[in-house]
Amino acid sequence: MSTTTSDELGSRPGRETLSPGARQSTLRESNLALVARTIYAAQSPLSRAGVAARTAMTRSTVSRLVDDLLAAGLVAEREPTTVAGPGRPATPLVPGSGVAALGLQVNASYLAARLVDLRGHVVAERVEYDDLVGCEPVPTLKRLGVVAAQVLAEAQGARVVGAGLALPGIVSSSGRLLRAPNLGWSDLAPGELLDAGATGGVPLRVGNEADLAALTVALAAPGRPGRLADFVYLSGEIGIGGAAVLDGRVMTGRHGWAGEVGHVCVDPNGPGCRCGSTGCLEQYAGRQALLAAAGLPAGTAAAQFAQDARSGPGPARDAVARAAWALGIALAGVVNVLDIPAIVLGGHLGQIADLLRPDLERQLRRRVLSARWVVPSIEAADGDPAPGATGAALQQLTAVVDDPSRWVDA
Amino acid sequence: MSTTTSDELGSRPGRETLSPGARQSTLRESNLALVARTIYAAQSPLSRAGVAARTAMTRSTVSRLVDDLLAAGLVAEREPTTVAGPGRPATPLVPGSGVAALGLQVNASYLAARLVDLRGHVVAERVEYDDLVGCEPVPTLKRLGVVAAQVLAEAQGARVVGAGLALPGIVSSSGRLLRAPNLGWSDLAPGELLDAGATGGVPLRVGNEADLAALTVALAAPGRPGRLADFVYLSGEIGIGGAAVLDGRVMTGRHGWAGEVGHVCVDPNGPGCRCGSTGCLEQYAGRQALLAAAGLPAGTAAAQFAQDARSGPGPARDAVARAAWALGIALAGVVNVLDIPAIVLGGHLGQIADLLRPDLERQLRRRVLSARWVVPSIEAADGDPAPGATGAALQQLTAVVDDPSRWVDA
Repeated sequence: MSTTTSDELGSRPGRETLSPGARQSTLRESNLALVARTIYAAQSPLSRAGVAARTAMTRSTVSRLVDDLLAAGLVAEREPTTVAGPGRPATPLVPGSGVAALGLQVNASYLAARLVDLRGHVVAERVEYDDLVGCEPVPTLKRLGVVAAQVLAEAQGARVVGAGLALPGIVSSSGRLLRAPNLGWSDLAPGELLDAGATGGVPLRVGNEADLAALTVALAAPGRPGRLADFVYLSGEIGIGGAAVLDGRVMTGRHGWAGEVGHVCVDPNGPGCRCGSTGCLEQYAGRQALLAAAGLPAGTAAAQFAQDARSGPGPARDAVARAAWALGIALAGVVNVLDIPAIVLGGHLGQIADLLRPDLERQLRRRVLSARWVVPSIEAADGDPAPGATGAALQQLTAVVDDPSRWVDA
Repeated sequence: MSTTTSDELGSRPGRETLSPGARQSTLRESNLALVARTIYAAQSPLSRAGVAARTAMTRSTVSRLVDDLLAAGLVAEREPTTVAGPGRPATPLVPGSGVAALGLQVNASYLAARLVDLRGHVVAERVEYDDLVGCEPVPTLKRLGVVAAQVLAEAQGARVVGAGLALPGIVSSSGRLLRAPNLGWSDLAPGELLDAGATGGVPLRVGNEADLAALTVALAAPGRPGRLADFVYLSGEIGIGGAAVLDGRVMTGRHGWAGEVGHVCVDPNGPGCRCGSTGCLEQYAGRQALLAAAGLPAGTAAAQFAQDARSGPGPARDAVARAAWALGIALAGVVNVLDIPAIVLGGHLGQIADLLRPDLERQLRRRVLSARWVVPSIEAADGDPAPGATGAALQQLTAVVDDPSRWVDA
């Protein structure tokens, strides 16, 4: 690389330029990434000329880079379409189907494995329902490995470029699970316990299930923004997980432990929580708390509870009202602090979102300081039974979109 | 600009490259910014050669850009120092004193104006204490204009490049004050009401006082990181303002209304708040609430209250205990959601930080899910009587550091 080029690279603003320890990406690497991102983000497929126009690169540079992305399966061509004006017909470029990532999830009531490709399509999936509260980690992860291997066997030739595991707990930045109270797991490294073959030989990245589930809302497909960019996601399970998303990015905080909306205090005089605090949101709106308040057995399915509550006045309906009140107090605090204009309810909370909405919205109107200008919207997640698995795969695929050069032959 | 250069500029990753409407900065502009940032961020002064080494630019490019920054007063040279090895003595480069910004603040108990230069030094300041609760906006801003003009008259030849105004309320992104309950102001445009001469002819940017005060912690000087990068700042006044800072940036949220920790609900059965909610943090830990709980007149100075509480058991000490309990519940929620490891207490809360700490820390240990690994630190802000004014000036100066080209002759 000539001095001039190095100088011009050095002129890019950004933290990495200032910290001498950071890796400088080469011009080719950042050009590849820009072309890939442009193709993935496009609402309707772009031609090479369209990519050149959007990136201010020359047509020949774009063509060379597109050819590399095609060869790696990261991009595919559709049938050429004839466009108005002179010249050859334009060939639309779309995300490739030759590259996929594995998303895994262990939750209190299921194990799941999904293979998702760069188009955001689910290539193969398997969900096994079971009561996993207090389960042993080693045999459970062994069982997850079997499920993962079954899904990988249906890869249809796609190259598996990454694997992620969603867990309902606090995960360190190095991928160690510090504590997952509802599974009864603490201080273990799932990446070491899971058989290497279970992930098709790629390393496993472990994350919090709500953080990963939120990606299914923030992204329509790898590299393509989803329907909301700013929202609080609540994951209704035995407890309640959460994630705050601003500008399309999940806020993970200083250590990766952000988003614990389930342990925001609703009422300091409220019931004691497993975590040692009192009046935590999940003591009112977690599945276990809702079922107990409604006088239903702990194993009752969320759909059954929702049907009971929907059938008319009674203990289930009362439990929903109490949950809506508690959600309103906790979420008003989150909105006051973060100024996030949308709330997405997942898991069992999504199944009763319509029942929760009136009381929840009333509390938000009363307790959010800026509610006179904007009342946060409340919506249900799309009902994916294992959104953490999908999000774990999307996270891996996003890493490919952000830096495709690792997967392209030099 | 040749096609090649345009292509290479286009290769910079980042949002602006993808949105065709955004302004593309020129190579010269981004090089100027990189050199300025490198000089401002350095812990000890760099020479031209030092800047070249850190930016991967050629020595001659750096020298040309430094000369432009010197001519504009944005950078200054210190006496050359002889370094080991052959060659001319190196000339240390430091932020210039020829450029300053005006910071203004109106709070419930004072008006303030400060002139701060690029070194972070206060060139001139004036604070007028008065009871401004329920004051009329027009005469108050007229009075602020007089104070500002007095400060500008002491500018000592520094060029004033920006002006900012900190207000205790919700400010729209266009700079309109939507609501400042403690002043009794709503829906007005301070930038239009303040006499143009009061800001030395530069436009006025209006912001929330806690957001701006937090900058005095996040920055040691314009462009130089301060002692904390991740913290929650609480501004104790009649009410309580707040700001969450992550990675050195104040989180302003979707509309700029984030940080309202004072209106997080501590106890839904608690006292009613001006805002229409119940049990808001400021009903326990705001200055008015503390004085009322201690049986002291509303006008009692924060220092007097602190002395009473420090003198031993009694109503003032009990009021502090109740405030610490409430702060613990509200801040535990913030830390659970944001994973921010430090809390900085400003205003009257800073003056009693030592008294608040034991009970506040006890609540955090009990209610923060990750407290078994990291207990958030609690510290007092530095006691600046008008940190919002300083922060408003720092914000303007940061804009100069980020894009110095506007202030450099082409």
